Amino acid sequence: MPVPGPGYSITIRVDAPPSAGVAGDLTSAVGRAGGVITAFDVVDSHTDSVVIDITCNALSADHARDITDAVGALDGVHVRKVSDRTFLVHLGGKIEISAKVALRNRDDLSRAYTPGVARICQAIADNPEDARRLTIKRNTVAVVTDGSAVLGLGNIGPAAALPVMEGKAALFKKFAGVDAWPVCLDTQDTEEIIRTVELIACVYGGINLEDIAAPRCFEIERRLREKLDIPVFHDDQHGTAIVVVAALRNALRVVGKSMAEAKIVVCGVGAAGSAIIRLLLQRSPADIIAVDVDGIVHGGRGDTDANLRWVASNTNRDGRTGRLHDALVGADVFIGVSAPNLFGAEQVATMADKAIVFALANPDPEIDPLEAQKHAAVVATGRSDYPNQINNVLAFPGVFRGLLDAQAHSITDAMLLAAADAIADVVDGDKLNPSFIVPSVFDAAVAPAVAEAVRKVAGSQ
Amino acid sequence: MPVPGPGYSITIRVDAPPSAGVAGDLTSAVGRAGGVITAFDVVDSHTDSVVIDITCNALSADHARDITDAVGALDGVHVRKVSDRTFLVHLGGKIEISAKVALRNRDDLSRAYTPGVARICQAIADNPEDARRLTIKRNTVAVVTDGSAVLGLGNIGPAAALPVMEGKAALFKKFAGVDAWPVCLDTQDTEEIIRTVELIACVYGGINLEDIAAPRCFEIERRLREKLDIPVFHDDQHGTAIVVVAALRNALRVVGKSMAEAKIVVCGVGAAGSAIIRLLLQRSPADIIAVDVDGIVHGGRGDTDANLRWVASNTNRDGRTGRLHDALVGADVFIGVSAPNLFGAEQVATMADKAIVFALANPDPEIDPLEAQKHAAVVATGRSDYPNQINNVLAFPGVFRGLLDAQAHSITDAMLLAAADAIADVVDGDKLNPSFIVPSVFDAAVAPAVAEAVRKVAGSQ
Repeated sequence: MPVPGPGYSITIRVDAPPSAGVAGDLTSAVGRAGGVITAFDVVDSHTDSVVIDITCNALSADHARDITDAVGALDGVHVRKVSDRTFLVHLGGKIEISAKVALRNRDDLSRAYTPGVARICQAIADNPEDARRLTIKRNTVAVVTDGSAVLGLGNIGPAAALPVMEGKAALFKKFAGVDAWPVCLDTQDTEEIIRTVELIACVYGGINLEDIAAPRCFEIERRLREKLDIPVFHDDQHGTAIVVVAALRNALRVVGKSMAEAKIVVCGVGAAGSAIIRLLLQRSPADIIAVDVDGIVHGGRGDTDANLRWVASNTNRDGRTGRLHDALVGADVFIGVSAPNLFGAEQVATMADKAIVFALANPDPEIDPLEAQKHAAVVATGRSDYPNQINNVLAFPGVFRGLLDAQAHSITDAMLLAAADAIADVVDGDKLNPSFIVPSVFDAAVAPAVAEAVRKVAGSQ
Repeated sequence: MPVPGPGYSITIRVDAPPSAGVAGDLTSAVGRAGGVITAFDVVDSHTDSVVIDITCNALSADHARDITDAVGALDGVHVRKVSDRTFLVHLGGKIEISAKVALRNRDDLSRAYTPGVARICQAIADNPEDARRLTIKRNTVAVVTDGSAVLGLGNIGPAAALPVMEGKAALFKKFAGVDAWPVCLDTQDTEEIIRTVELIACVYGGINLEDIAAPRCFEIERRLREKLDIPVFHDDQHGTAIVVVAALRNALRVVGKSMAEAKIVVCGVGAAGSAIIRLLLQRSPADIIAVDVDGIVHGGRGDTDANLRWVASNTNRDGRTGRLHDALVGADVFIGVSAPNLFGAEQVATMADKAIVFALANPDPEIDPLEAQKHAAVVATGRSDYPNQINNVLAFPGVFRGLLDAQAHSITDAMLLAAADAIADVVDGDKLNPSFIVPSVFDAAVAPAVAEAVRKVAGSQ
């Protein structure tokens, strides 16, 4: 059963009688309606009434209304207004621009703007690499989306995707001091997306592609990497792959298996699944079996999609066929980036001993983690309310910090693997256990470690 | 003769003997070499030496080297290093991005990012106008250039134009709290520029075109105004026109003439000149005569450029022909946005009594203002070292503040004129005089007055 979380948090402001029992009445009403109270504040107090803010988590808009109705039905209680804390956080957007230079007087102005700025322009015209020293390019990344594959919402378009890109930009700054700017493109044409990014790229030291649907995202990433002299990273692919490889390295340590003996099922062959397969192959597992809605991917399926053909010819060395349930038999590892509720405990029981299950579909995983735990040795999800959250925030801020610091012109698989190892290494050997295979997203050691690892590889190339 | 200014300011760090006379020796050496000292700091002091930072303004790179050599030639003085303060100001760029939301813990994260952010995305998908409330669109402007007409530098390209765009963004924030972001486009193809701006526009509440060459800029502005549901402003055109109209209104008050009797010569028919003509025509002067490198613009010249044809058919009602010097005879007002040193005091003498001369070419005006003053009643330039500086900073921050506050979908001539009147009105009648026809760029009253005027017009439409 879902639990009310802070993603749906409301504050109900009420006028209530100043009686001794009013607090109890209000909190009981909220509790009976299923709300979880997180704050209770008396805002104002008069002889005949008090003003109270009750903040609580709800499940949905309907649930929030039920809670509000329950409060308003109390004798003598009048609901003044209900604020949705998530909406309040978003008013006017989540990022802003500030000047790093003083503009107090004419002298300041003549250095930061005309006439002094002309010499900076001329220096860059004479030596374009100076842009990485004398402009925001040194620390700035574009977060580029076409709004075609946003969270669990799907193809909601560029304007509706903006709050996610702003959130991403806020995370970039918070975790790694990177200035990231949302670029939401009002086209889903592959050629237009490529050309537009090419035309705007000179302001940026890196490109972070975000929430662009497969298979378009592969072509866009490949072509932009050819065209641009700055690194191009697709977070849904590479960010996810980095964190999965990190988590799997530690999970295998926990169960005492080596990568070379691991038979891995990857369910979902979109952006994330394909990138996970590509990066895992660099670590030479015993085998990977890819599964999509049509079952196990193999050369005989007659797939026409270039990505699926590549996957078919680089995985499944025994040429297995069948459905997901067939693929799971004897597998050491399940990695799902696909759809909710695809299998249960009985399928996990068919996996190899000490099975590892990463059920990463969001918000509802491929298998309920409590079910998976019945037979699996290590279970991870994408959710924050279970242990072992596989969250891209562990990767992308540090990766770009490292790339920008190194003034890297491109990104390589060696950098992605170094980032994965850096994340895995943040978990000390003595802390490693089945419920702690990746560090917390709030572990301040992660981003600097990832940045250092990426810088080192970039510097040696 | 040019004077060393803060646009070229250097700091020379020297080791010097700890003698009583060292300060005098150093400052004398800088002064003899023509440098203007603005700061003198003893940074460190030992028994046998002192470390001193001498900060001074110079004219050019060669001049800075001469000054440094003069200092280094002093007995016992060793120059450690020379820093260019303009370059120091630009290291790493002039703007940065910061998060407006807290990201301290999981609750914060679940409101500003997943899962909470999904509800904001859905709200915008359901009602696109909500983007102006729940995203950065509410307060954000794109500063768009193709780098084709940057300052006095010309066509230096998009990367070299970035420092100017960053400076503009810093000014937007400083003077009006507007978040402005540089968009430097690596194309000078009109269709590609239009299409790219269209594709990136959904993040922004307004577009500020900047330093795009004429006549391309006219087509880009016109087409984008048709396509987009946000205001499109070309600062080189509209910003300049607003401030010129404001300054002219006050200058005419100073000399006691009305707009209806003013014969105006506009020299230069590029972006700025054309926009000045268009906006002035809304105020119905007696006549405007436009002049370009080929002389007075008239219908018989056989110009093929659409902009020039429009100018020819809307100005010069007596069909005058000839050169600039012919146009000036009998004119009440000269407005130059063209090239340096086109005429002298003797031509001003041929103008009408109480002539007004706005010589705005940068950095060197159409006529030396000291020459112009011999016969003109009011003289203005674009320079900060003469009175009456015509500076776009008086217009663009307030204009966009007003447009964003009004959530305007377009910008009209009525708004530009209201902005001009607001700027003119900031100069109180009792302070108005030939040397004070526009407020200082640092007058904090200007941007709010302009914003209020623009909001009022936008709200009534």
